Amino acid sequence: MFKIALVPGDGIGPDIIKQAVKVLKAIERPGEIEFEFTEVLAGGTAIDKTGHPLPKESLDICLASDAVLLGAVGGPKWDNLPGDIRPEQALLGLRKGLGVFANLRPAVLFPQLKKASPLKEEIIGEGIDVLVVRELIGGIYFGQRGRDGDRAYDTECYSVPEVERIARVAFDTARKRRRKVTSVDKANILESSRLWRETITHVAEQYPDVELNHMYVDNCAMQLIRNPHQFDVIVTSNMFGDILSDEASMLVGSLGMLPSASLGDTKRGFYEPIHGSAPDIAGQDKANPLATILSVAMMLRYSFDLTHQADMIERAVAQVLEDGYRTADIMENDMKLVGTDKMGDLVVEYL
Amino acid sequence: MFKIALVPGDGIGPDIIKQAVKVLKAIERPGEIEFEFTEVLAGGTAIDKTGHPLPKESLDICLASDAVLLGAVGGPKWDNLPGDIRPEQALLGLRKGLGVFANLRPAVLFPQLKKASPLKEEIIGEGIDVLVVRELIGGIYFGQRGRDGDRAYDTECYSVPEVERIARVAFDTARKRRRKVTSVDKANILESSRLWRETITHVAEQYPDVELNHMYVDNCAMQLIRNPHQFDVIVTSNMFGDILSDEASMLVGSLGMLPSASLGDTKRGFYEPIHGSAPDIAGQDKANPLATILSVAMMLRYSFDLTHQADMIERAVAQVLEDGYRTADIMENDMKLVGTDKMGDLVVEYL
Ligand SMILES: CC(C)[C@H](C(=O)O)[C@@H](O)C(=O)O
Ligand SMILES: CC(C)[C@H](C(=O)O)[C@@H](O)C(=O)O
Repeated sequence: MFKIALVPGDGIGPDIIKQAVKVLKAIERPGEIEFEFTEVLAGGTAIDKTGHPLPKESLDICLASDAVLLGAVGGPKWDNLPGDIRPEQALLGLRKGLGVFANLRPAVLFPQLKKASPLKEEIIGEGIDVLVVRELIGGIYFGQRGRDGDRAYDTECYSVPEVERIARVAFDTARKRRRKVTSVDKANILESSRLWRETITHVAEQYPDVELNHMYVDNCAMQLIRNPHQFDVIVTSNMFGDILSDEASMLVGSLGMLPSASLGDTKRGFYEPIHGSAPDIAGQDKANPLATILSVAMMLRYSFDLTHQADMIERAVAQVLEDGYRTADIMENDMKLVGTDKMGDLVVEYL
Repeated sequence: MFKIALVPGDGIGPDIIKQAVKVLKAIERPGEIEFEFTEVLAGGTAIDKTGHPLPKESLDICLASDAVLLGAVGGPKWDNLPGDIRPEQALLGLRKGLGVFANLRPAVLFPQLKKASPLKEEIIGEGIDVLVVRELIGGIYFGQRGRDGDRAYDTECYSVPEVERIARVAFDTARKRRRKVTSVDKANILESSRLWRETITHVAEQYPDVELNHMYVDNCAMQLIRNPHQFDVIVTSNMFGDILSDEASMLVGSLGMLPSASLGDTKRGFYEPIHGSAPDIAGQDKANPLATILSVAMMLRYSFDLTHQADMIERAVAQVLEDGYRTADIMENDMKLVGTDKMGDLVVEYL
């Protein structure tokens, strides 16, 4: 029996979480695989109802679960609130509260969606498959910040143990892939990057079978576009990871398809699609639920060791695409347009 | 009589500076337009000869000039020196010493080089023309940094006047272009970004004829690829500008073509191609001198008010490309391959 905390959040969050639950229910086998779902309040919706983006009770339920699945948080409605009662605080609070320091963001081009990539065919080649491992609960996101007269400051800060643990996740993951790690920093300028580079280099000694190279963040922003094939696993800080993972996800041309997993020291993981809350299409049966469904596959793989079931979901998604079903965001000529609900049903059917 | 300090620097630096000087000499008109050139030592070459990346005398000569033209600095030879005697320190020292707070980096797609862009034709459309205005002497590049036990930190810091002056450059420049400014920050996380956003918004009141929008840096990294046409002028911090301007320059597919200008409160400017020192092809007559030659055009326009001559250089470069001449980095089928020196001669001839 696995306990799953569901955080629908704002905008299309509830629409897509509903489809993910359908898929999880289809995986259940009484006595063998069972899920217990608890819905919790977070984000803008939580601000409206309780005045807080992440009520203590919500975090407590997540902490008592085996995995947390989030839809999306935020929206223009809450954009002008002061810094500490913004929907994003729910995201940061959950990440920090759950201790999930490693954010895994695969940028994979689905062969069926090749046309959606903004890159030329000759650059795409056989496809794109880059995994960004982003440090998630340190760096400038959580460093000291404030104002001092007419100045404002933020602190980028990393310690050796913080870098060591994210490095291990990157190298371990690379071992299950193409055994190559690119560590991205700005060591020609930043002291925190020099510590980052030294520490990664040190940890790499324990992984002689994995190739390591270092790259400056500005160069990486170029190389991702010029030749994405040179990358297998990219490991980087919270801030650089935010930028580079979004860039990488745009290269594959289908934000609505990309899942993410955030892991800590235990099996408990935090899963979410990388796209936003798209308030303009909320509740209209238009959102693409596949990124959330693929996040469920990551959950099964990383938190529940249900590798076979994770593979099944990923294959079902590929087959649905292969057979020409598309939500509006990835629609092309000659394809079959379906809504959120129907897309969820199709994945269940193909399982 | 304009005084120009030449900083050939390392790698291909001397090769390309030579071509730029040729072009400047071709512009000279005795009694009307005259240039006085002084060569100064900086970068790795300066470390080798004096032990310092930027000898005081070099900075003094630059400070006494009307404009500074830099080739490139750095190379693997100096990569393992300690933090404060690295070639990059010459760059930072010159920028800070000259007070050039506004770095203008145009990312323009030359119609003749359309094929070189990694983007699909339908995204390129009529061409790409984005100008990144990067704050150059503040932020995390120059904030307090250090180590404290096994931790290392850097400080991102901006003051209202620092943001105001870069904002004015962005809005003034936008007025000469398509009157649209996109300010890029991470105001949902960083206090310095919130100050940035407030200040930009405030300055914008004085430019009611310019459209302003704000965008998060992660989203901007995506939007540049998805639809570069939505941008006219992007204004952002030193660190974000470093990443986004490199990303933008890769989209146009020809690093060897892109100039930059860095300006301060006076007419004195600092000009450099955005590409690196390419030590592997140094001294082999292979480097593309066009980015440096186009940097000269920016120099004529911004520091010397020689708009007509600047236009002439830009037209000459376009015509050389139109007639099929290419250096190795931008070579395509059916084109005429030429070396560094010949390319410089061609631009002079077409003037
Ligand atoms: C919403 C925002 C705070 C968040 C981040 O910057 O981490 C988002 O961009 C992401 O990448 O999940
Ligand atoms: C070499 C490096 C210090 C420099 C920077 O980061 O500013 C370079 O990347 C640039 O953009 O001119």
